[in-house]
Amino acid sequence: MHTNESGTSLQLRSLVKKSGELELSLVEVPVQVPKDNEVLVRIDASPINPSDIGLLFGAADMSAATAIETANGPVVTARVPERGLKAMAARLDMSMPVGNEGAGLVVGSGASAAARQLLGKTVAVLGGAMYSQYRCVPVEQCLLLPDGATAVEGASSFVNPLTALGMVETMRAEGHKALVHTAAASNLGQMLNRICLQDGIDLVNIVRSQEQENLLRKIGAKYICNSDADNFMPSLTDALAATGATIAFDAIGGGKLAGQILSGMEVAANRNAKEYSRYGSTTFKQVYIYGSLDMRPTEFIRDFGMTWGMGGWLLFPFLQKAGPATVERLKQRVAAELKTTFASHYTKEVSLAEALQPDAIAAYGKRSTGEKYLIVPSKGLVGQ
Amino acid sequence: MHTNESGTSLQLRSLVKKSGELELSLVEVPVQVPKDNEVLVRIDASPINPSDIGLLFGAADMSAATAIETANGPVVTARVPERGLKAMAARLDMSMPVGNEGAGLVVGSGASAAARQLLGKTVAVLGGAMYSQYRCVPVEQCLLLPDGATAVEGASSFVNPLTALGMVETMRAEGHKALVHTAAASNLGQMLNRICLQDGIDLVNIVRSQEQENLLRKIGAKYICNSDADNFMPSLTDALAATGATIAFDAIGGGKLAGQILSGMEVAANRNAKEYSRYGSTTFKQVYIYGSLDMRPTEFIRDFGMTWGMGGWLLFPFLQKAGPATVERLKQRVAAELKTTFASHYTKEVSLAEALQPDAIAAYGKRSTGEKYLIVPSKGLVGQ
Repeated sequence: MHTNESGTSLQLRSLVKKSGELELSLVEVPVQVPKDNEVLVRIDASPINPSDIGLLFGAADMSAATAIETANGPVVTARVPERGLKAMAARLDMSMPVGNEGAGLVVGSGASAAARQLLGKTVAVLGGAMYSQYRCVPVEQCLLLPDGATAVEGASSFVNPLTALGMVETMRAEGHKALVHTAAASNLGQMLNRICLQDGIDLVNIVRSQEQENLLRKIGAKYICNSDADNFMPSLTDALAATGATIAFDAIGGGKLAGQILSGMEVAANRNAKEYSRYGSTTFKQVYIYGSLDMRPTEFIRDFGMTWGMGGWLLFPFLQKAGPATVERLKQRVAAELKTTFASHYTKEVSLAEALQPDAIAAYGKRSTGEKYLIVPSKGLVGQ
Repeated sequence: MHTNESGTSLQLRSLVKKSGELELSLVEVPVQVPKDNEVLVRIDASPINPSDIGLLFGAADMSAATAIETANGPVVTARVPERGLKAMAARLDMSMPVGNEGAGLVVGSGASAAARQLLGKTVAVLGGAMYSQYRCVPVEQCLLLPDGATAVEGASSFVNPLTALGMVETMRAEGHKALVHTAAASNLGQMLNRICLQDGIDLVNIVRSQEQENLLRKIGAKYICNSDADNFMPSLTDALAATGATIAFDAIGGGKLAGQILSGMEVAANRNAKEYSRYGSTTFKQVYIYGSLDMRPTEFIRDFGMTWGMGGWLLFPFLQKAGPATVERLKQRVAAELKTTFASHYTKEVSLAEALQPDAIAAYGKRSTGEKYLIVPSKGLVGQ
């Protein structure tokens, strides 16, 4: 196997101590031996997704983080406010590995035929602890990349692609015909636009700046509403009426946006109402909050009748509910369209040690559209 | 038929004019002739439910209402604020009859056997416009009251009883084993307590005063939390942990209560958690908002993970979804337990004209627990 000489692998860890100190560091862990149905993957690329950052920073105030250099690379420390500590009771003093997904070369395999078939192939993998030089994972958590696709191209094969596809699947399964997406110029949002264009689904994109609007316009988006513009509500309502979108996926979470979307849907539904209904329209309107880019409380005026729902949406429960056949279908689509629909772009590629440099943390920690980092854990391995 | 001599019936109407004036009055309408499957009911009792008050007052400022006397009784006028007018665009300049439910004597019938069987019987009826001396309704909207039950006893057979039963049905259908109810000392809340005691279901009652707590304690309620008390959150969380309640029905709507319930459910779910989950517990938590006793915006801190839902809940869509067999089962239970589980109590019985007196409006308009009016539309009819 192509592990380093000592048979160990560097792994990025996030530790929140009971004292309120966050510590990010690289630890040496033994390289595992694959069981029958497992493969050992040398992780060559792993993105820093917004969903990773929560686990990584654990509510710490990163603006005051400090870093020191050690033999194993940088150790970063920061303070977690009292309030954040309480919410994390269950992870205190536990050293947590990070990184939802990645891609790399299969360098070892268990005895099963399925595992052996992947030897020497480049696969995308899902399953946590991907900010590691080596990861042992069951075959089902791998996606064989098409010939000629690199680990960098396949690194984001799961979280964003399956989330975007999952939104469309959820829309259909729950009886809606068009959808709304916020923070719509993100990597995920761009994928969703490509999926919807391809599948002929109307998508209302909500963005927060003219630049984001331009970006989406360029890739063919038809309905774009800027929540910072004066005409936001009328423009949103027009788009909702034109598309008939009655389900939204909201990455913002805080503030008034989720409620504004429901209000706009209600006005759109009532535009052609024949009769007064004192409980509002009978059109079911749903907003799923799947992110928390705005950490403030969620606030809404209940001016959208009684036929509405709000709730949390997460990829993993969706996949579980959708079942293995649907998941397999979605994964095959991701593999087939990896370089088109599901192409991701990164601002910068960094090693595990470079990911812990204060300037890097400041950049990807913003979680802003267009600042996306890719970790290359195998950088620095013997023979690389 | 026992109609008055001119063949007309007085009916209470609510009219919101484009000018922003609300007008409540009694109008004479012709008594309808029942079609084959219909019966004509002399309405002897009809409650003023919170769900009627919205239609009746149409967002007008009733504290500055004025009344004049006319030949047909009082005419009440009040101003509707600009904001309220906009939300009511679809009902402007339309004279709306009011009153969701009532009970009375069947004084006429269509030709069908089902209709003729009800002649001379006392029935409860659902279907709007019950603040009328006579109402023609299809047989399916009637519930034959048990022998010896009066119209006053049967007047509230539908809205509160079916709402309370509907909450329990919804709880079961959506996989929960215990429930939470707010404004829990209301007529509806007392019914729900009696249902839950009888069916062996744990119910967490949230009230806003010591008096309401005492009232519920007296009828056997076990879990009562006072949202005005200092220890509200710990006491709520303990009750949620003890009962395993993961669904709530909230009559308040505005403010922080709905979110606090979800937060309490999350803490209760995590009490016995073995493992840290960065997305919160995997226990699904649901709050249905079915009323708006607090008209302020709804506001919540998303500290309850990602596995949650909030939404509107209404009796009529529930009945439609539940289907005729379930609805019939629930109706039969209401009839069988009319004088026990589903007994309602009223502060005062008033005629249609008395219901439009300013002092009466001030009293029932408060929508407060323990102030419930019953209209007796047949009061004043010839021969009564």
